[in-house]
Amino acid sequence: MREVAVVGVGMTQFGPSEKTNVELFSEAAMDAIAESNLEPKDVQALFLGNVFCGFEEGQVTLSAFAAADIGVPYIPTTRFEGACASGSVAIRDAYMWVASGAYDIVLAGGTEKALAMGTAYATRTFAMGSDSRYEAPTGITFPGIFAMMAHLYAKKYGIPLEQLKEQMAMVAVKNHHNGTFHPKAHFRKEITIQDVYKSIMVADPLQLYDCCPFSDGAAAIIIASAEKAKKLTDKPVYFAGAGQCSAPPLPNQKDITLVKARQASAKQAYDMAGLSPNDIDICELHDCFTIAEIVATENLGFFDHGEGCKGVERGETQIGGRIPINPSGGLKARGHPIGATGAAQVYEIAKQLRGECGERQVEGAKTGMTDTLGADLCMVCNMIFRI
Amino acid sequence: MREVAVVGVGMTQFGPSEKTNVELFSEAAMDAIAESNLEPKDVQALFLGNVFCGFEEGQVTLSAFAAADIGVPYIPTTRFEGACASGSVAIRDAYMWVASGAYDIVLAGGTEKALAMGTAYATRTFAMGSDSRYEAPTGITFPGIFAMMAHLYAKKYGIPLEQLKEQMAMVAVKNHHNGTFHPKAHFRKEITIQDVYKSIMVADPLQLYDCCPFSDGAAAIIIASAEKAKKLTDKPVYFAGAGQCSAPPLPNQKDITLVKARQASAKQAYDMAGLSPNDIDICELHDCFTIAEIVATENLGFFDHGEGCKGVERGETQIGGRIPINPSGGLKARGHPIGATGAAQVYEIAKQLRGECGERQVEGAKTGMTDTLGADLCMVCNMIFRI
Repeated sequence: MREVAVVGVGMTQFGPSEKTNVELFSEAAMDAIAESNLEPKDVQALFLGNVFCGFEEGQVTLSAFAAADIGVPYIPTTRFEGACASGSVAIRDAYMWVASGAYDIVLAGGTEKALAMGTAYATRTFAMGSDSRYEAPTGITFPGIFAMMAHLYAKKYGIPLEQLKEQMAMVAVKNHHNGTFHPKAHFRKEITIQDVYKSIMVADPLQLYDCCPFSDGAAAIIIASAEKAKKLTDKPVYFAGAGQCSAPPLPNQKDITLVKARQASAKQAYDMAGLSPNDIDICELHDCFTIAEIVATENLGFFDHGEGCKGVERGETQIGGRIPINPSGGLKARGHPIGATGAAQVYEIAKQLRGECGERQVEGAKTGMTDTLGADLCMVCNMIFRI
Repeated sequence: MREVAVVGVGMTQFGPSEKTNVELFSEAAMDAIAESNLEPKDVQALFLGNVFCGFEEGQVTLSAFAAADIGVPYIPTTRFEGACASGSVAIRDAYMWVASGAYDIVLAGGTEKALAMGTAYATRTFAMGSDSRYEAPTGITFPGIFAMMAHLYAKKYGIPLEQLKEQMAMVAVKNHHNGTFHPKAHFRKEITIQDVYKSIMVADPLQLYDCCPFSDGAAAIIIASAEKAKKLTDKPVYFAGAGQCSAPPLPNQKDITLVKARQASAKQAYDMAGLSPNDIDICELHDCFTIAEIVATENLGFFDHGEGCKGVERGETQIGGRIPINPSGGLKARGHPIGATGAAQVYEIAKQLRGECGERQVEGAKTGMTDTLGADLCMVCNMIFRI
């Protein structure tokens, strides 16, 4: 298969929005198209990640209307759903269609109006990501699952819970700090460890500031064959590897501090890229909760198991650290419009590798990885990019 | 790209079911896997079409749980949504992943519990396929749109409405007749033109028997590289062509008797296959309403515009006719579990080309085409198969 690159990226402001999913995605898409030195008519197909357009707006067939809104109504369009990994899944699929030679230029990304649903409805709706037969009826929601992950992590590695809570709070503090430098982040304010401790308890030991927000927003990228990419931009960002893996419902997962689907997905991406975790300069990963970031940094191979929490403490995951994690602010501060999150991760990696991130720039970054996790650790998609 | 074939197919009984989407899809998938002389562990990825699992069961992440249920939890899985074309869109995408060389053996198909929602809720939910900003708020639903199509068709071609109504009724009679020979069809009873006339008016001129039912059901296929296919079966059914195209919301479509998205999609499929409409031996197409079948036979090039209605009258679309349309009974009689419909069409074409259809067999069929239409004519996917 041939080489493929990201040639342009766009995203909306993340946070509350009055716009529809179609309008949000169009805004991000038009920015990505313009940045690619293209016109809408050059787009040959649309790959759109979105989870809940039916619940958010009484709308399905979203991909067709999104294409029409940017002025290319008569192209193939598809909506992809893989829970919170929907945007990444759409991009990985788009990558294949260009790599195979079927298309030269495609538009991919995601959109979601998660915040617009309101917290109560959004929590209930998000819970549809877990198994509707055996999990949802028990009343468990995602904060509860990640709270269990934190307890298991502390027990497994013999870490006093209070110590782990402080390390988790450091994740929140770091990501909020990074987010202050991202003009389109949902939250752009510094917080302290004390702020985390003072926030309300959501699901013990996770407090409010251990949790990412619901956000509205969209992000889009243009993917082109390497041949086209070189004509369109001086800074193509190449796909080096991609992986995807699902997992069974939570009761069938043996150890949720390991996230087996991620291990398999990341291995696919590393193998395809011919790279190891040591070769990755920056990573945008799925910090839906602070414990999720710590576990992800281990699952992806940046730290040994049980060591991710210490890496945060030592500042190794900060911008300027050994392996900067979520320089964008992550889901925690940039925000989490679920179907758009994977695309926002690719947006950040592309901007970072092109050296366009201003105060949040990771100097000299040449390889970057994305990691998106869906539902009860049931859906993971990873991508590796290089310049 | 390399050659790819369908090596096994499966489907559930269509009609009312107490099973979940996961259970329905598993049943169809296990049949397809067994028919392919494979075991679940041989499946490398799952491509699943489904539109409304959230509304039907409070379930998203459906693809992951479907894979887990058949015993392959740790593979890449994705849900595809393109309104009523979702199953076809999933299969076309799966085709690409095998043709590109990324996978050798994949499972694709669709599932839906449309009937389980109840008619009132299903009608409201289906309407989410139309534009939620400008169409749904006007109260229009799909029967209304296809009723307008019938009126426009009659006016455009100068056909007295009563004559068109009789021709439309002949579509229903033919498809019900074909359905009596399909053991898994939702309806297996003969009807007469008088039965159509006596049925309740849904949206003038469409009466109840001009409309396909809501159904529950699933269908699945195994797609393999030609090399693998030859080892697995004596009867591989090869992909010859595939196409997909979207369209803008209905108010932006100029003439809904033409279905521009279908013309573009079908052209892609024909061009890729190097075939013309005259080369097609059988076609499974989207007869969501009787008028839809007549229009589709013209859009796909089997009849000149305005002549499809006469073709039905002359019996040219019957089994044994010039171009047998919907030998399975179509959406009208086999049923319409929306996300599964495209997969059920491929099931029928594969069975027909393998000569396994018993009383509904189209003798000597060597090429077959599928056609699935989504929403307000906004999403079309076509595939051509050959032996």
